[in-house]
Amino acid sequence: MLWQRLPSLHPAPLRFSMAKRFQTLPGFRDFYPEECAARNYVFDVWRRVARRYGFVEYEGPVLEPTELYRRKSGAEIVNQLFCFEDKGGREVSMRPELTPTLARMAAARQRDFRKPLRWFSIGQFFRYEKHQKGRGREFYQFNCDILGEPSVLADAELMALSVDLMREFGFTAADFRLRVSDRDAWVGFAAERGLGEEEIASFLQIIDKMERTPEDKVAEQLGALGLAPEDVRAFVASGAEASPAIREVVRNLRARGLGDYVEVDLGIVRGLAYYTGPVFEIFDIARGMRAIAGGGRYDQLVGLVGGVEMPACGFAMGDMVATDLIRETPAPSDLLSAAAAAAAGLDVQVVLADPSKGDEAALVAQRLREAGWRAVLPLSEAKVGKQFQAAEQAGARFAAVVGAEFPEVTLRDLARRSERKVPCEDLAAALGEAE
Amino acid sequence: MLWQRLPSLHPAPLRFSMAKRFQTLPGFRDFYPEECAARNYVFDVWRRVARRYGFVEYEGPVLEPTELYRRKSGAEIVNQLFCFEDKGGREVSMRPELTPTLARMAAARQRDFRKPLRWFSIGQFFRYEKHQKGRGREFYQFNCDILGEPSVLADAELMALSVDLMREFGFTAADFRLRVSDRDAWVGFAAERGLGEEEIASFLQIIDKMERTPEDKVAEQLGALGLAPEDVRAFVASGAEASPAIREVVRNLRARGLGDYVEVDLGIVRGLAYYTGPVFEIFDIARGMRAIAGGGRYDQLVGLVGGVEMPACGFAMGDMVATDLIRETPAPSDLLSAAAAAAAGLDVQVVLADPSKGDEAALVAQRLREAGWRAVLPLSEAKVGKQFQAAEQAGARFAAVVGAEFPEVTLRDLARRSERKVPCEDLAAALGEAE
Repeated sequence: MLWQRLPSLHPAPLRFSMAKRFQTLPGFRDFYPEECAARNYVFDVWRRVARRYGFVEYEGPVLEPTELYRRKSGAEIVNQLFCFEDKGGREVSMRPELTPTLARMAAARQRDFRKPLRWFSIGQFFRYEKHQKGRGREFYQFNCDILGEPSVLADAELMALSVDLMREFGFTAADFRLRVSDRDAWVGFAAERGLGEEEIASFLQIIDKMERTPEDKVAEQLGALGLAPEDVRAFVASGAEASPAIREVVRNLRARGLGDYVEVDLGIVRGLAYYTGPVFEIFDIARGMRAIAGGGRYDQLVGLVGGVEMPACGFAMGDMVATDLIRETPAPSDLLSAAAAAAAGLDVQVVLADPSKGDEAALVAQRLREAGWRAVLPLSEAKVGKQFQAAEQAGARFAAVVGAEFPEVTLRDLARRSERKVPCEDLAAALGEAE
Repeated sequence: MLWQRLPSLHPAPLRFSMAKRFQTLPGFRDFYPEECAARNYVFDVWRRVARRYGFVEYEGPVLEPTELYRRKSGAEIVNQLFCFEDKGGREVSMRPELTPTLARMAAARQRDFRKPLRWFSIGQFFRYEKHQKGRGREFYQFNCDILGEPSVLADAELMALSVDLMREFGFTAADFRLRVSDRDAWVGFAAERGLGEEEIASFLQIIDKMERTPEDKVAEQLGALGLAPEDVRAFVASGAEASPAIREVVRNLRARGLGDYVEVDLGIVRGLAYYTGPVFEIFDIARGMRAIAGGGRYDQLVGLVGGVEMPACGFAMGDMVATDLIRETPAPSDLLSAAAAAAAGLDVQVVLADPSKGDEAALVAQRLREAGWRAVLPLSEAKVGKQFQAAEQAGARFAAVVGAEFPEVTLRDLARRSERKVPCEDLAAALGEAE
C-alpha cells in the first residue's frame, strides 16, 4: 500500500524529537478514507446480492475457544492461529474462519428457526501466515451458508449466488469461472482402491495441492498410498461423469442462464477438513488464476461442534483478492470508483462571509443537516475565496454563503456557477428544487 | 441474552452422544439475525449522521503493538488489555480503543489530507473486564474526530453531532443530556493550588470517580493532595464561570437550536489520560443515568504517538448502552423494529406447483433477482399449501407460482389476496407495477 512505502513525512528535527513512531503490525492494514470506501463498496455488493437471494445477516465473536478449530478445520489453519491464553486462563484464538462458529450458533438455537437457514455474514478473520500480495494476516470475508437442507439444489443456489456476486462487481464470463467438483467422488475413488479413513484424508491433501506440486513429487506421494498418477489423472479427466451431484448442479445452473460461467474441475477438493460433498471455487481466468471464493457441503460439522445433525453447505469470499481483481479490471474498477466518490461526496459547503455571523452559519449547517443534506461548516476564520476553494476541492455541489444579510443566505450552485438569495428557513427546500 | 439462558435444546440421547458442546466466551456475543439487524441499524444511524456532518469513514487494525496503549490511555485500560505475544515474538493487543490508532494514522500521512480532517469509524473493541449489563468484553464503537483544528468550534461541532445521533435514534430532550466540562479548567484549579504534574493526574482520577465514591473517601483522597472537598465542590458549582471554552461551546450549541440538550457539569473529566481541553458526555436522564457517549480534546496525542503536532478532538459512542436504551424507550424502539423488519423483508416467494418444473422455478428466481427483487426459491419438494405458508411466515409480499403453464407464471399479491398470470419474461416489470 502506498503509504507504507512513503518515507517519513516530517522534517528531521521533529522526526527525532519524539520517543517512538508507531507502525502497523506486518500483514495488518490501515484503511484510510479512500481504502475504507473501497472496502465498504465490496461489503455493499456482498450484502445486496445476498439479500436478493433471501439471506439474512448474522455475526459471531472474533475470539473463540481454540478447541473449536482443532481437528475440525485442518492442520494448516490450526498452525496459523493467532492463539493465546486470556487473563482467565482460557485457550482462545482470534478466528481464522467462520464456519465452526456458524455450526455452534446454528446448533445452539436450531429449534428457533425455520429450516433451511439462509444466513450470510461479513466480518474480519486472522491467520498468522507469510505476508504476501493478496494474503494478509487479517482479511474480511463474506460467508454465506444454507443449513438444514440436504438437497443438492442448495449447493446450486450458493453457486448461483457466488456467480451473481461477481457479476454485480461488473465481471463477465471473460473474467472468471465457477469450478465445480465433488469431494464425495474422490472419497469413493479412494475407498474403491482400499484406502482407510486416515489415508483418505492424506490423499485429499495431495489432490488439493496437486496443481502446485512437481509431478515426480505427486507420483511419490500417491505411490506411498499405493496409487498410480495415471489412475488419478484419468479420474480428473472423467469430469461430470464421476459425480451425479456435479451433473445436477451444472444442469440447474444452466437452467438459470449461468452455464457460461461454469466448468467441472475434479482437481478441486478444498483444503478444509470438514467438506463432505460438492465443492466449488471461483477463479480469475483473465489475470493470474487466483481463487476468489470457495466452499462446499459440510454435512457433519454442525453435529461435531454442536451435537445436532444438520446438513449444510456454504462458501466464502475474501476481500483482498476480490478487491485486487476489481482494481485491475476496467469495468469493475469504474464501478468501485463511482461508489467511492459518492461516499465521499458533499452537498453544501457553508461559507462564512462575515466573521461575526459564526453562530448563524452554525444554524444554517444545522438546518441543512436536519433536512438530510451533507453540509460542512468552516471551523476557523478564512478568506471567502479560500472557503470557496475548499468547497470545490471537497467536491461540494453548493455553497451557502452566510454574511451581513442573514437571515437571507446566498445559495450558489458551484457546477452551474449560478446563485440566488434564499431566506434561511427556505434553504433546505431550495436545495431540493435545485437538484 | 435470551439464548444464553435457554437450556440445552436437543434430547438427552443426542446431547451426550457428542464429545463436546462449544460455548461463546464470557463477555462475547453471538449476533443471530435479529440482533445483527439491530446492530446494523445502529451502524446505519451512526454512518448517516456522520456523513451529514461531512465526515468520511476510515478503519484501523484490530491488533496493534501493546506499546501504543501504554502510558497514553491510562492505567485502567492497560490493565484490561487482551494482550499476548504473537508467533513472531511481538507484544500485541486487541485494541481497547481507537484514538491511539487514529493518532498514528493521521500523523503518518498528515501531508496527504486537507486540514481539518473530519473522520469517523465504526469498529469492534476489546477489554478484559468484569462482564455486566451494558459492558461486555467486546463492543462496537462509533468514533468521530476532527484533527488539525485548534478552534473550540470543532469541539462544538462534535457535540452537536453527538446530539444529532441521539435525535436520529428518536430520543428527545426528555431522554438525554449533553454534559460539558473542561479538563483545562481543572488543571488550572490544581496548578493554582500548587499541585505538580503527577499529582494533577491523580487529582483528575479522583474527580473522575468522585460521583461513585463515598464522601469520606473522597475527602481522604483530596486531603492527601492538600485539597479541601468544599473547595472542589465550590469549583464544580461555579459551572460555566470556570471556563471560557465551555461558555463558547454552550453559546454555539444554543445558536444551533440545541440548547435544550446541553448542561454544564464540571464533575466530568473523563477517565482517559490524554484529554487536554473541553470534555463531554451524553447521559441518559430518564433511565439509569448511564453514559452513552463521551469524548473531548486531546491536543498532545498525535505528537506523542506520531511525532507530528496536530490539535485534535473526538468522541465515541458504544453500541451496548445505546442499544439497551433504544430498546427501553418506546419511539426509538419502534424505529429499530421497523428497520430490522425491513432488513429481513422478502419480496417474492417462488412457489413450485409442478415438481418437474424445478429448473424453470430456478430461472424465475434468477430473473427476479437480476431485476433487484429479493426472491426465495424452494430447495426441496413441498406441498403447494406448505409453500404458501412458508411465504407468509417469511413475510413475502408476493408469490410467483411456477407450474405446468410455464412460461406463464401466476403472480399472487399475498396481502391483497389477488393474482394474475404473467409471462416469465414480464414478471419483474409486473412486480414493479404491483408495488
